[in-house]
Amino acid sequence: MNTNRCYEREFVRTFFTSPTAVEGEEDSAKMIRSAAQLRGMQAPDVWVPDNEDATAPSMRDEGVKNIIEIVSEHGADFPGEIHPRLVWHRENPTIRYQGFQHMLEVADPDNNAIEYIDGFVIPEVGDIDDWKKADEFFTIVENKYGLPEGSFSMSVIIESGEAELAMADLREEIGKPSNNLERLFLLVDGEVDYTKDMRAMTPTGELPSWPELRHNTSRGASAAGLIAVDGPYDDIRDIEGYHERMTENRAKGMNGIWSLTPKQVVEANKAPLPPKAGSWILELDDREIELEEDAGRQIYSGTELRIEETADEQYTLSVRGNEYELDRDGLRKELLDMLVYVPSMDDIVDSMEEFEAAKESGKGAIAITQSTTVVVDGVEIDVKKDRMWDEATYQAAQTPVSLFKDVYKNRPDQHEELEKMYGEDIVQRAINVGS
Amino acid sequence: MNTNRCYEREFVRTFFTSPTAVEGEEDSAKMIRSAAQLRGMQAPDVWVPDNEDATAPSMRDEGVKNIIEIVSEHGADFPGEIHPRLVWHRENPTIRYQGFQHMLEVADPDNNAIEYIDGFVIPEVGDIDDWKKADEFFTIVENKYGLPEGSFSMSVIIESGEAELAMADLREEIGKPSNNLERLFLLVDGEVDYTKDMRAMTPTGELPSWPELRHNTSRGASAAGLIAVDGPYDDIRDIEGYHERMTENRAKGMNGIWSLTPKQVVEANKAPLPPKAGSWILELDDREIELEEDAGRQIYSGTELRIEETADEQYTLSVRGNEYELDRDGLRKELLDMLVYVPSMDDIVDSMEEFEAAKESGKGAIAITQSTTVVVDGVEIDVKKDRMWDEATYQAAQTPVSLFKDVYKNRPDQHEELEKMYGEDIVQRAINVGS
Amino acid sequence: MNTNRCYEREFVRTFFTSPTAVEGEEDSAKMIRSAAQLRGMQAPDVWVPDNEDATAPSMRDEGVKNIIEIVSEHGADFPGEIHPRLVWHRENPTIRYQGFQHMLEVADPDNNAIEYIDGFVIPEVGDIDDWKKADEFFTIVENKYGLPEGSFSMSVIIESGEAELAMADLREEIGKPSNNLERLFLLVDGEVDYTKDMRAMTPTGELPSWPELRHNTSRGASAAGLIAVDGPYDDIRDIEGYHERMTENRAKGMNGIWSLTPKQVVEANKAPLPPKAGSWILELDDREIELEEDAGRQIYSGTELRIEETADEQYTLSVRGNEYELDRDGLRKELLDMLVYVPSMDDIVDSMEEFEAAKESGKGAIAITQSTTVVVDGVEIDVKKDRMWDEATYQAAQTPVSLFKDVYKNRPDQHEELEKMYGEDIVQRAINVGS
Repeated sequence: MNTNRCYEREFVRTFFTSPTAVEGEEDSAKMIRSAAQLRGMQAPDVWVPDNEDATAPSMRDEGVKNIIEIVSEHGADFPGEIHPRLVWHRENPTIRYQGFQHMLEVADPDNNAIEYIDGFVIPEVGDIDDWKKADEFFTIVENKYGLPEGSFSMSVIIESGEAELAMADLREEIGKPSNNLERLFLLVDGEVDYTKDMRAMTPTGELPSWPELRHNTSRGASAAGLIAVDGPYDDIRDIEGYHERMTENRAKGMNGIWSLTPKQVVEANKAPLPPKAGSWILELDDREIELEEDAGRQIYSGTELRIEETADEQYTLSVRGNEYELDRDGLRKELLDMLVYVPSMDDIVDSMEEFEAAKESGKGAIAITQSTTVVVDGVEIDVKKDRMWDEATYQAAQTPVSLFKDVYKNRPDQHEELEKMYGEDIVQRAINVGS
Repeated sequence: MNTNRCYEREFVRTFFTSPTAVEGEEDSAKMIRSAAQLRGMQAPDVWVPDNEDATAPSMRDEGVKNIIEIVSEHGADFPGEIHPRLVWHRENPTIRYQGFQHMLEVADPDNNAIEYIDGFVIPEVGDIDDWKKADEFFTIVENKYGLPEGSFSMSVIIESGEAELAMADLREEIGKPSNNLERLFLLVDGEVDYTKDMRAMTPTGELPSWPELRHNTSRGASAAGLIAVDGPYDDIRDIEGYHERMTENRAKGMNGIWSLTPKQVVEANKAPLPPKAGSWILELDDREIELEEDAGRQIYSGTELRIEETADEQYTLSVRGNEYELDRDGLRKELLDMLVYVPSMDDIVDSMEEFEAAKESGKGAIAITQSTTVVVDGVEIDVKKDRMWDEATYQAAQTPVSLFKDVYKNRPDQHEELEKMYGEDIVQRAINVGS
Repeated sequence: MNTNRCYEREFVRTFFTSPTAVEGEEDSAKMIRSAAQLRGMQAPDVWVPDNEDATAPSMRDEGVKNIIEIVSEHGADFPGEIHPRLVWHRENPTIRYQGFQHMLEVADPDNNAIEYIDGFVIPEVGDIDDWKKADEFFTIVENKYGLPEGSFSMSVIIESGEAELAMADLREEIGKPSNNLERLFLLVDGEVDYTKDMRAMTPTGELPSWPELRHNTSRGASAAGLIAVDGPYDDIRDIEGYHERMTENRAKGMNGIWSLTPKQVVEANKAPLPPKAGSWILELDDREIELEEDAGRQIYSGTELRIEETADEQYTLSVRGNEYELDRDGLRKELLDMLVYVPSMDDIVDSMEEFEAAKESGKGAIAITQSTTVVVDGVEIDVKKDRMWDEATYQAAQTPVSLFKDVYKNRPDQHEELEKMYGEDIVQRAINVGS
């Protein structure tokens, strides 16, 4: 039996939470009312009316009513999935029972919201046995309202050591006859409470980066056919930091992230898509400097790398204070070692098409070449980077393309923006390439 | 059922080992005799008369006698807990039996040491089944001497791959009716033997840093309600390196560390406590430079960051060779991006009190502001850093404060030093703030 | 019961794959024909005629015939072990059955190859139950041809999240009466397909470095008495990068690596052996600069570190723009903090012999001293580094020496090269030192 995902989407880029009831506002549903009307790149793949941490404890009953009101009114037109977050705690049966009651209310067919709700998010889970308690409540609710078992998907927030450990058991627990854990959908890290649970501290109070937790979440998702999502990035003004975090996450197979604002949603919806234009990066030690394109040439204008032509075709290359005397070939070789190329969507589709044609004609591997002219201190050097593409490279390159196709299929409201971003031609070719 | 710790202390900062019997000395108990008389910041939270690796195999029977002599004489007055380390090996029943006999002797009520001993440390454990063998010996010893099962706590040294794996099973093994693993207390990494067991090598012979092991130990402790402690830091003269290691560890939730000397004990007792004074840090790439306080201004006096006022309110900012032309606001923004603030104990208590008051009055989040004047090359710039505090921030900030309270409660011998360090007022406020 | 390895070799440095059948060549067995004739440092510890990814699907039946032809002809003289890789996939029974049929054919005694084959490599394994399916086929094949169960060792490629998780269960699954998993030999990471399975992406298309996977593989191997091997390093021209990867791996206890070319085999066979000559390394931030030996002095000739004698025995030390005024002792101390020593094979053997003698005479620890003269900008400073050696240091130092002995014992064809590399005297002393 294969590891098949039991739900529509194969990728979730964005997990956007909104408070369900805000105190002291004339319209306490204000935040979810506006969130429900987001469209296009501003609308998340998964929208989470958040009746837990984002909403004050005293407002949560009102929050449930607001969810019902807003989802019944706007749910039909919302372009993403809708997964309210309920209250739950592995160590507190009062809270678990409250979450169950809220679910009963939201799911009541008489309230007309449930047909637009795809699932619920359960925070603060513990061991796998605790996950099963939540799953059982889903089953009871489904049964009470005459829905097939497994109608609602269940996403969990990983914010304790025991929940992290539980992810290693998912694969063998899902599918046991006494549970419906096949309903699992997202594994979402919750680093704020995880940090508290682990009793971790940093001098500045910033969150630790928890690379092992993110690896384990991504692996747990991969092994059980689920989707991994990273937790909130608190500093909402730090767009660059948000992007760095997402790049790190994708290298771990964690392709989704929490968003706290529509602006973060836009960034996170776009981030995993291949860029419109390729770019050349100069790697100096641990730093990456993107070269500036100018008429097909790549200009470096910093001061840490210097090139001087000392005689005909003889050069001095200075890198952070170290000097090398080189001829033109030597110079080219040194530069090549420092350069990497970030392919565009166009490049990726080209390479895939080229490889598919080669395979058709019986070839197992082809070389993909990228060339450009690099300019440093006025000295121009032509460089060429080869990369061997075989079946494995081709398969790995599918990931961003599959993600793109998944977005295209599930988010018609983003077609226009995608076509504006890439051009219609590339969008069509991307949709048709690959398996 | 909650994850409750089954022992007094909630935090252990220091795990200090002393050889139980030294060859060729007139008084073979010399080392533990002096260790037993340490007080205040020099005395560890957990003291470990070490009858294993620190003591030559031929001296270990004498070591047992020395433990009995010293603990019966000084145990009543020792301010920390006392946990002798016995011999044990997952692959050697002779050694395990020897450890058992030593425990029988140390615990014999006729020897008058046992009333001051809180538990024993078992090194070189393997699978969870091996931990159970040790646990069974504890139970037999307790039974023989008429003590309730679970009287002695058990701490283990994680120094094999199988012990690392066992930590993932603790939560479900503890509490099974056929063992008394509730007695578990500390999970202590032993990187020297772990490195050997993993057959790892480094060019210089230094130990690998084993980030994954430390994560897994911290997580295992968190999930089972235990306390995680890092292994020995061999280079006892390298105080800065010891501090860096502890800062890394705390970001993993591993708040305790092994100490090899009273000087290391002092450093490790103080390290997890918030600083007396806050400080501003400039982050240049991966390096952190603490600015020098001078009359409320923060002075940078290095050469990698330069600021020159080129015209009225116009500046050139040079960072490692890259130059930026900025107005005053642009300059402030660039600097802010590079600055972080490390809050003092006073700051943390202030923020917590402020948040508690805000919550009382129905507010869910407040902004905490830190401001200062930064001086670079004589140019003065006022900067202000905001941080949003909500329930989650408040909860996370509790960790250092809870640790402080735990120290205050369990270590009256350190009250004077703590009051000298922080002032009486802040100590009292820290004790009263939080839940 | 101890964790004993059930096979001859204790270490495997090199895992070299060759396509079993190349399309469009007159001799489709060309690649394995030449690989089978490698000797000395060019010959791997484990040679893998690769009937999976390296060979086109349409050529795999021919590949099986080629394996039989080449191994029966050259197997007797091949100096390493021979482990063909068959096809397998956790999600595809057709492919699994094909792998089984290929094994039946290769192992058929009438084909005269099997007596030279040590085991088979199974790629794309999943859960432990999937490993058992492969193991069962091994058992059936052994039984059919009258061989004792466990005659063939089984190595697996870890290229899915579920296989990574399975490694945590090996220790308790091996030895169950219903399987023959004691036949397990190598755990080999396959990062290309693992990246695909985890759906990870990087901007450039390069593979993520997967530190946690490598840790878990190494730990799984350690706990189950197996050998950990890292996956292929694609950029075969980047020798420096290959070495950096191997250094990182050894710090994780992963002492073997895949090789794609005989040149990579040479590098990987030599890399884990201690160097012929010791060296001094200057650590500037994250970078390591090897000093140049000249007549017993160590010369630094870069520009990031500068020393100027400003008055008699008074110095200005400049490190990346920061200046320190120091006397001679202060200067020595600063330099020492930046210096590390990489011991030679000779140094390691010396230290071990010295420690063995000390232990014999009842001493538990000795100081090992390395001294040299460092020259920066013409200023000469004598430095001396002490390192305390105790039983634990001695045990840890055994790893490279044990590896050396293992190589010496199992690879007589490399004796000559080893003696040329180290000198006969050191080779003999290394073989005799240690336990």
